[in-house]
Amino acid sequence: MASRTADGYENGRLRREAILDAAFGYFARAGYHGASLREIALAAGVSYPGLRHHFATKDALLLAVLAQREERAAALLERDDALPVLDRLVALLEANRAERGLAQLFARVAAEASEPDHPAHGYFLERYARIRSHLARGLRADAAAGRIGAGVDPERAAVALIALADGLQTQWLLDADAVDMAAELRRSATGILRG
Amino acid sequence: MASRTADGYENGRLRREAILDAAFGYFARAGYHGASLREIALAAGVSYPGLRHHFATKDALLLAVLAQREERAAALLERDDALPVLDRLVALLEANRAERGLAQLFARVAAEASEPDHPAHGYFLERYARIRSHLARGLRADAAAGRIGAGVDPERAAVALIALADGLQTQWLLDADAVDMAAELRRSATGILRG
Repeated sequence: MASRTADGYENGRLRREAILDAAFGYFARAGYHGASLREIALAAGVSYPGLRHHFATKDALLLAVLAQREERAAALLERDDALPVLDRLVALLEANRAERGLAQLFARVAAEASEPDHPAHGYFLERYARIRSHLARGLRADAAAGRIGAGVDPERAAVALIALADGLQTQWLLDADAVDMAAELRRSATGILRG
Repeated sequence: MASRTADGYENGRLRREAILDAAFGYFARAGYHGASLREIALAAGVSYPGLRHHFATKDALLLAVLAQREERAAALLERDDALPVLDRLVALLEANRAERGLAQLFARVAAEASEPDHPAHGYFLERYARIRSHLARGLRADAAAGRIGAGVDPERAAVALIALADGLQTQWLLDADAVDMAAELRRSATGILRG
Protein backbone atom coordinates (compact mmCIF):
# COMPACT_ATOMS: atom_id res chain seq x y z
CA MET A 1 0.00 0.00 0.00
CA ALA A 2 2.76 2.40 0.94
CA SER A 3 4.43 1.77 -2.40
CA ARG A 4 1.19 2.23 -4.37
CA THR A 5 0.61 5.51 -2.59
CA ALA A 6 4.14 6.61 -3.38
CA ASP A 7 3.64 5.62 -7.04
CA GLY A 8 0.37 7.51 -7.12
CA TYR A 9 2.07 10.56 -5.72
CA GLU A 10 4.91 10.26 -8.23
CA ASN A 11 2.46 9.84 -11.13
CA GLY A 12 0.52 12.87 -9.98
CA ARG A 13 3.70 14.90 -9.83
CA LEU A 14 4.73 13.81 -13.34
CA ARG A 15 1.28 14.61 -14.72
CA ARG A 16 1.39 18.04 -13.06
CA GLU A 17 4.77 18.73 -14.67
CA ALA A 18 3.58 17.55 -18.09
CA ILE A 19 0.61 19.94 -17.82
CA LEU A 20 2.85 22.86 -16.79
CA ASP A 21 5.23 22.16 -19.70
CA ALA A 22 2.40 22.01 -22.25
CA ALA A 23 0.71 25.10 -20.79
CA PHE A 24 3.99 27.04 -20.98
CA GLY A 25 4.09 26.58 -24.75
CA TYR A 26 0.43 27.47 -25.25
CA PHE A 27 0.48 30.59 -23.07
CA ALA A 28 3.72 31.77 -24.73
CA ARG A 29 2.36 31.38 -28.26
CA ALA A 30 -1.33 32.21 -27.80
CA GLY A 31 -1.42 34.34 -24.63
CA TYR A 32 -3.86 33.84 -21.80
CA HIS A 33 -7.00 34.47 -23.81
CA GLY A 34 -5.93 32.40 -26.81
CA ALA A 35 -4.83 29.30 -24.89
CA SER A 36 -7.34 26.46 -24.50
CA LEU A 37 -7.37 24.12 -21.48
CA ARG A 38 -8.64 21.27 -23.65
CA GLU A 39 -5.74 21.66 -26.10
CA ILE A 40 -3.27 21.89 -23.22
CA ALA A 41 -4.68 18.67 -21.70
CA LEU A 42 -4.38 16.92 -25.07
CA ALA A 43 -0.77 18.08 -25.54
CA ALA A 44 0.09 16.96 -21.99
CA GLY A 45 -1.43 13.52 -22.55
CA VAL A 46 -3.96 13.87 -19.73
CA SER A 47 -7.75 14.00 -19.77
CA TYR A 48 -9.53 17.31 -19.39
CA PRO A 49 -10.92 16.31 -15.93
CA GLY A 50 -7.39 15.16 -15.07
CA LEU A 51 -6.07 18.63 -15.87
CA ARG A 52 -8.86 20.26 -13.86
CA HIS A 53 -7.98 18.02 -10.92
CA HIS A 54 -4.53 19.64 -10.80
CA PHE A 55 -5.56 23.16 -11.86
CA ALA A 56 -9.17 24.06 -11.16
CA THR A 57 -9.11 27.15 -13.40
CA LYS A 58 -7.15 28.62 -16.31
CA ASP A 59 -6.09 31.44 -13.97
CA ALA A 60 -4.57 28.96 -11.53
CA LEU A 61 -2.73 27.22 -14.36
CA LEU A 62 -1.30 30.48 -15.75
CA LEU A 63 -0.11 31.63 -12.35
CA ALA A 64 1.53 28.24 -11.70
CA VAL A 65 3.37 28.43 -15.06
CA LEU A 66 4.59 31.97 -14.36
CA ALA A 67 5.75 31.09 -10.85
CA GLN A 68 7.60 27.99 -12.07
CA ARG A 69 9.39 29.83 -14.89
CA GLU A 70 10.12 32.88 -12.76
CA GLU A 71 12.30 30.82 -10.44
CA ARG A 72 15.09 30.56 -13.00
CA ALA A 73 15.11 34.27 -13.79
CA ALA A 74 15.09 35.15 -10.10
CA ALA A 75 17.94 32.74 -9.46
CA LEU A 76 20.05 34.40 -12.18
CA LEU A 77 19.36 37.91 -10.91
CA GLU A 78 19.87 37.06 -7.25
CA ARG A 79 22.60 34.52 -7.79
CA ASP A 80 25.52 36.52 -6.63
CA ASP A 81 24.87 39.80 -4.92
CA ALA A 82 28.58 40.62 -5.15
CA LEU A 83 28.42 40.82 -8.97
CA PRO A 84 27.66 44.21 -10.55
CA VAL A 85 23.96 44.57 -11.43
CA LEU A 86 24.79 45.06 -15.09
CA ASP A 87 26.65 41.73 -15.30
CA ARG A 88 23.67 39.92 -13.80
CA LEU A 89 21.21 41.56 -16.19
CA VAL A 90 23.41 40.74 -19.18
CA ALA A 91 23.60 37.11 -18.01
CA LEU A 92 19.80 37.02 -17.82
CA LEU A 93 19.40 38.30 -21.39
CA GLU A 94 22.04 35.82 -22.58
CA ALA A 95 20.04 33.02 -20.97
CA ASN A 96 16.78 34.28 -22.51
CA ARG A 97 18.39 34.18 -25.95
CA ALA A 98 18.41 30.38 -25.69
CA GLU A 99 14.84 30.39 -24.32
CA ARG A 100 12.73 32.25 -26.82
CA GLY A 101 9.51 30.72 -25.47
CA LEU A 102 10.25 31.98 -21.98
CA ALA A 103 10.92 35.53 -23.15
CA GLN A 104 7.76 35.36 -25.23
CA LEU A 105 5.63 34.12 -22.32
CA PHE A 106 6.58 37.06 -20.13
CA ALA A 107 6.31 39.63 -22.95
CA ARG A 108 2.90 38.34 -24.06
CA VAL A 109 1.37 38.00 -20.66
CA ALA A 110 2.87 41.23 -19.25
CA ALA A 111 1.28 43.15 -22.14
CA GLU A 112 -2.10 41.45 -21.57
CA ALA A 113 -1.87 41.89 -17.81
CA SER A 114 -1.86 45.70 -17.94
CA GLU A 115 -5.65 45.31 -17.80
CA PRO A 116 -6.57 45.45 -14.09
CA ASP A 117 -9.03 42.55 -14.41
CA HIS A 118 -6.48 40.21 -16.02
CA PRO A 119 -5.78 37.22 -13.73
CA ALA A 120 -2.03 37.92 -13.77
CA HIS A 121 -2.32 41.68 -13.15
CA GLY A 122 -1.41 41.43 -9.47
CA TYR A 123 1.35 38.97 -10.24
CA PHE A 124 3.03 41.37 -12.69
CA LEU A 125 2.58 44.42 -10.43
CA GLU A 126 4.31 42.51 -7.65
CA ARG A 127 6.96 41.09 -10.03
CA TYR A 128 8.04 44.47 -11.37
CA ALA A 129 8.07 46.04 -7.89
CA ARG A 130 10.21 43.13 -6.64
CA ILE A 131 12.72 43.32 -9.53
CA ARG A 132 12.94 47.11 -9.26
CA SER A 133 13.69 46.93 -5.56
CA HIS A 134 16.18 44.09 -6.01
CA LEU A 135 18.09 45.95 -8.74
CA ALA A 136 18.00 49.21 -6.77
CA ARG A 137 19.58 47.40 -3.81
CA GLY A 138 22.30 46.04 -6.10
CA LEU A 139 22.90 49.48 -7.61
CA ARG A 140 23.37 50.95 -4.14
CA ALA A 141 26.08 48.34 -3.57
CA ASP A 142 27.59 49.20 -6.98
CA ALA A 143 27.61 52.87 -5.99
CA ALA A 144 29.25 52.12 -2.63
CA ALA A 145 31.93 50.13 -4.47
CA GLY A 146 32.46 52.99 -6.93
CA ARG A 147 31.33 50.88 -9.89
CA ILE A 148 28.69 53.39 -11.06
CA GLY A 149 28.48 57.19 -11.13
CA ALA A 150 27.90 58.99 -7.84
CA GLY A 151 24.92 60.91 -9.25
CA VAL A 152 22.91 57.81 -10.25
CA ASP A 153 19.54 57.44 -8.49
CA PRO A 154 19.30 53.66 -7.82
CA GLU A 155 15.47 53.48 -7.94
CA ARG A 156 15.26 55.42 -11.21
CA ALA A 157 18.15 53.58 -12.81
CA ALA A 158 16.46 50.28 -11.92
CA VAL A 159 13.32 51.39 -13.80
CA ALA A 160 15.45 52.32 -16.82
CA LEU A 161 17.50 49.10 -16.86
CA ILE A 162 14.36 46.94 -16.71
CA ALA A 163 12.78 49.05 -19.47
CA LEU A 164 15.86 48.66 -21.65
CA ALA A 165 15.96 44.88 -21.13
CA ASP A 166 12.21 44.49 -21.81
CA GLY A 167 12.30 46.73 -24.87
CA LEU A 168 15.34 45.02 -26.38
CA GLN A 169 13.52 41.71 -26.02
CA THR A 170 10.49 43.12 -27.86
CA GLN A 171 12.66 43.93 -30.90
CA TRP A 172 14.59 40.67 -30.63
CA LEU A 173 11.42 38.55 -30.43
CA LEU A 174 10.15 40.20 -33.61
CA ASP A 175 13.44 39.93 -35.47
CA ALA A 176 16.29 38.03 -33.82
CA ASP A 177 18.81 39.28 -36.41
CA ALA A 178 18.05 42.97 -35.80
CA VAL A 179 19.30 43.14 -32.23
CA ASP A 180 22.23 41.84 -30.20
CA MET A 181 20.42 42.15 -26.87
CA ALA A 182 23.33 41.56 -24.51
CA ALA A 183 25.70 43.91 -26.36
CA GLU A 184 23.08 46.68 -26.63
CA LEU A 185 22.15 46.35 -22.98
CA ARG A 186 25.77 46.58 -21.90
CA ARG A 187 26.53 49.59 -24.08
CA SER A 188 23.41 51.58 -23.22
CA ALA A 189 23.32 50.69 -19.53
CA THR A 190 26.93 51.78 -19.20
CA GLY A 191 25.87 55.24 -20.41
CA ILE A 192 22.91 55.32 -18.00
CA LEU A 193 25.00 54.17 -15.01
CA ARG A 194 27.78 56.67 -15.56
CA GLY A 195 25.40 59.21 -14.03
CA MET B 1 -28.99 60.70 -58.00
CA ALA B 2 -25.65 62.44 -57.62
CA SER B 3 -26.65 63.66 -54.17
CA ARG B 4 -27.87 60.20 -53.07
CA THR B 5 -24.59 58.71 -54.19
CA ALA B 6 -22.67 61.34 -52.24
CA ASP B 7 -24.79 60.61 -49.15
CA GLY B 8 -24.19 56.91 -49.55
CA TYR B 9 -20.48 57.52 -49.78
CA GLU B 10 -20.56 59.74 -46.70
CA ASN B 11 -22.58 57.17 -44.72
CA GLY B 12 -20.16 54.45 -45.72
CA ARG B 13 -17.23 56.56 -44.59
CA LEU B 14 -18.89 57.25 -41.22
CA ARG B 15 -19.70 53.55 -40.71
CA ARG B 16 -16.12 52.65 -41.57
CA GLU B 17 -14.85 55.13 -38.99
CA ALA B 18 -17.25 53.87 -36.34
CA ILE B 19 -16.00 50.32 -36.96
CA LEU B 20 -12.34 51.41 -36.73
CA ASP B 21 -13.02 53.28 -33.47
CA ALA B 22 -14.79 50.31 -31.89
CA ALA B 23 -12.16 47.86 -33.15
CA PHE B 24 -9.39 50.03 -31.69
CA GLY B 25 -10.83 49.59 -28.19
CA TYR B 26 -11.37 45.84 -28.57
CA PHE B 27 -7.92 45.10 -30.01
CA ALA B 28 -6.27 47.25 -27.32
CA ARG B 29 -8.06 45.50 -24.45
CA ALA B 30 -8.38 41.93 -25.76
CA GLY B 31 -5.59 41.63 -28.35
CA TYR B 32 -6.04 40.18 -31.81
CA HIS B 33 -7.07 36.70 -30.66
CA GLY B 34 -9.42 37.90 -27.94
CA ALA B 35 -11.32 40.45 -30.04
CA SER B 36 -14.60 39.36 -31.65
CA LEU B 37 -15.86 40.81 -34.94
CA ARG B 38 -19.48 40.36 -33.79
CA GLU B 39 -18.86 42.36 -30.62
CA ILE B 40 -17.04 45.05 -32.59
CA ALA B 41 -19.97 45.30 -35.03
CA LEU B 42 -22.40 45.62 -32.12
CA ALA B 43 -20.31 48.33 -30.45
CA ALA B 44 -20.03 50.22 -33.76
CA GLY B 45 -23.79 50.05 -34.32
CA VAL B 46 -23.50 48.17 -37.61
CA SER B 47 -24.65 44.70 -38.61
CA TYR B 48 -22.14 41.88 -38.83
CA PRO B 49 -22.52 41.66 -42.65
CA GLY B 50 -22.14 45.46 -42.71
CA LEU B 51 -18.82 45.16 -40.91
CA ARG B 52 -17.70 42.38 -43.26
CA HIS B 53 -18.60 44.61 -46.22
CA HIS B 54 -15.98 47.11 -45.06
CA PHE B 55 -13.44 44.63 -43.67
CA ALA B 56 -13.62 41.16 -45.16
CA THR B 57 -11.44 39.60 -42.45
CA LYS B 58 -10.30 40.24 -38.89
CA ASP B 59 -6.74 40.56 -40.26
CA ALA B 60 -7.80 43.36 -42.60
CA LEU B 61 -9.56 45.16 -39.74
CA LEU B 62 -6.54 44.91 -37.41
CA LEU B 63 -4.16 46.20 -40.07
CA ALA B 64 -6.50 49.11 -40.86
CA VAL B 65 -6.68 50.06 -37.17
CA LEU B 66 -2.89 49.92 -36.79
CA ALA B 67 -2.31 51.99 -39.94
CA GLN B 68 -4.86 54.62 -38.86
CA ARG B 69 -3.41 55.00 -35.35
CA GLU B 70 0.17 54.87 -36.56
CA GLU B 71 -0.31 58.07 -38.53
CA ARG B 72 -0.37 60.21 -35.39
CA ALA B 73 2.76 58.64 -33.92
CA ALA B 74 4.59 58.99 -37.22
CA ALA B 75 3.52 62.63 -37.50
CA LEU B 76 4.93 63.38 -34.02
CA LEU B 77 8.23 61.65 -34.74
CA GLU B 78 8.67 63.13 -38.19
CA ARG B 79 7.08 66.48 -37.42
CA ASP B 80 10.17 68.57 -37.30
CA ASP B 81 13.40 67.04 -38.45
CA ALA B 82 15.27 70.04 -37.04
CA LEU B 83 14.33 69.08 -33.46
CA PRO B 84 16.71 66.80 -31.55
CA VAL B 85 15.58 63.15 -31.69
CA LEU B 86 15.27 63.02 -27.92
CA ASP B 87 12.80 65.94 -27.84
CA ARG B 88 10.61 64.23 -30.43
CA LEU B 89 10.64 60.91 -28.56
CA VAL B 90 9.78 62.64 -25.29
CA ALA B 91 6.89 64.43 -27.02
CA LEU B 92 5.64 61.07 -28.29
CA LEU B 93 5.65 59.53 -24.80
CA GLU B 94 3.93 62.64 -23.41
CA ALA B 95 1.21 62.23 -26.03
CA ASN B 96 0.87 58.51 -25.26
CA ARG B 97 0.32 59.34 -21.60
CA ALA B 98 -3.02 60.85 -22.57
CA GLU B 99 -3.78 57.88 -24.86
CA ARG B 100 -3.51 54.80 -22.72
CA GLY B 101 -5.54 52.72 -25.21
CA LEU B 102 -3.19 53.58 -28.04
CA ALA B 103 -0.08 52.59 -26.07
CA GLN B 104 -1.86 49.42 -25.05
CA LEU B 105 -2.85 48.53 -28.61
CA PHE B 106 0.73 48.68 -29.83
CA ALA B 107 2.17 46.92 -26.77
CA ARG B 108 -0.42 44.12 -26.92
CA VAL B 109 -0.27 43.49 -30.62
CA ALA B 110 3.53 43.89 -30.92
CA ALA B 111 3.92 41.16 -28.27
CA GLU B 112 1.47 38.86 -30.09
CA ALA B 113 3.00 39.63 -33.47
CA SER B 114 6.38 38.15 -32.62
CA GLU B 115 4.83 34.90 -33.87
CA PRO B 116 5.72 34.72 -37.59
CA ASP B 117 2.20 33.55 -38.53
CA HIS B 118 0.46 36.45 -36.76
CA PRO B 119 -1.38 38.67 -39.29
CA ALA B 120 0.48 41.79 -38.08
CA HIS B 121 3.96 40.19 -38.02
CA GLY B 122 5.06 41.82 -41.28
CA TYR B 123 3.52 45.12 -40.24
CA PHE B 124 5.55 45.24 -37.02
CA LEU B 125 8.78 44.10 -38.67
CA GLU B 126 8.41 46.92 -41.17
CA ARG B 127 7.31 49.41 -38.46
CA TYR B 128 10.33 48.82 -36.25
CA ALA B 129 12.73 48.92 -39.21
CA ARG B 130 11.17 52.20 -40.34
CA ILE B 131 11.33 53.84 -36.88
CA ARG B 132 14.91 52.64 -36.35
CA SER B 133 16.03 54.08 -39.65
CA HIS B 134 14.15 57.35 -39.06
CA LEU B 135 15.68 57.82 -35.61
CA ALA B 136 19.15 56.87 -36.86
CA ARG B 137 18.87 59.57 -39.54
CA GLY B 138 17.86 62.10 -36.89
CA LEU B 139 20.73 61.04 -34.64
CA ARG B 140 23.19 61.55 -37.50
CA ALA B 141 21.89 65.12 -37.77
CA ASP B 142 22.19 65.50 -33.97
CA ALA B 143 25.78 64.29 -34.18
CA ALA B 144 26.58 66.70 -37.03
CA ALA B 145 25.15 69.55 -34.92
CA GLY B 146 27.22 68.45 -31.92
CA ARG B 147 24.10 67.67 -29.87
CA ILE B 148 25.19 64.10 -29.03
CA GLY B 149 28.53 62.45 -28.28
CA ALA B 150 30.88 61.85 -31.20
CA GLY B 151 31.26 58.16 -30.35
CA VAL B 152 27.54 57.35 -30.56
CA ASP B 153 26.59 54.79 -33.24
CA PRO B 154 23.29 56.14 -34.66
CA GLU B 155 21.85 52.72 -35.64
CA ARG B 156 22.61 51.18 -32.27
CA ALA B 157 21.46 54.19 -30.30
CA ALA B 158 18.18 54.09 -32.25
CA VAL B 159 17.61 50.47 -31.14
CA ALA B 160 18.31 51.46 -27.53
CA LEU B 161 16.05 54.54 -27.53
CA ILE B 162 13.13 52.56 -28.97
CA ALA B 163 13.74 49.80 -26.42
CA LEU B 164 13.79 52.30 -23.58
CA ALA B 165 10.55 53.95 -24.75
CA ASP B 166 8.78 50.59 -25.25
CA GLY B 167 9.97 49.22 -21.92
CA LEU B 168 9.00 52.34 -19.97
CA GLN B 169 5.53 52.03 -21.46
CA THR B 170 5.29 48.40 -20.30
CA GLN B 171 5.88 49.46 -16.68
CA TRP B 172 3.63 52.52 -17.02
CA LEU B 173 0.76 50.50 -18.51
CA LEU B 174 0.92 48.10 -15.55
CA ASP B 175 1.24 50.83 -12.92
CA ALA B 176 0.92 54.46 -14.03
CA ASP B 177 2.15 55.74 -10.66
CA ALA B 178 5.38 53.76 -10.73
CA VAL B 179 6.94 55.50 -13.71
CA ASP B 180 7.29 59.04 -15.05
CA MET B 181 7.91 57.94 -18.63
CA ALA B 182 9.00 61.23 -20.15
CA ALA B 183 11.36 62.12 -17.29
CA GLU B 184 12.93 58.64 -17.23
CA LEU B 185 13.36 58.62 -20.99
CA ARG B 186 15.06 62.01 -20.95
CA ARG B 187 17.41 61.14 -18.10
CA SER B 188 18.42 57.71 -19.41
CA ALA B 189 18.62 58.66 -23.07
CA THR B 190 20.89 61.57 -22.16
CA GLY B 191 23.32 59.05 -20.67
CA ILE B 192 23.11 56.82 -23.74
CA LEU B 193 23.59 59.70 -26.18
CA ARG B 194 26.61 61.16 -24.41
CA GLY B 195 28.53 58.30 -26.00
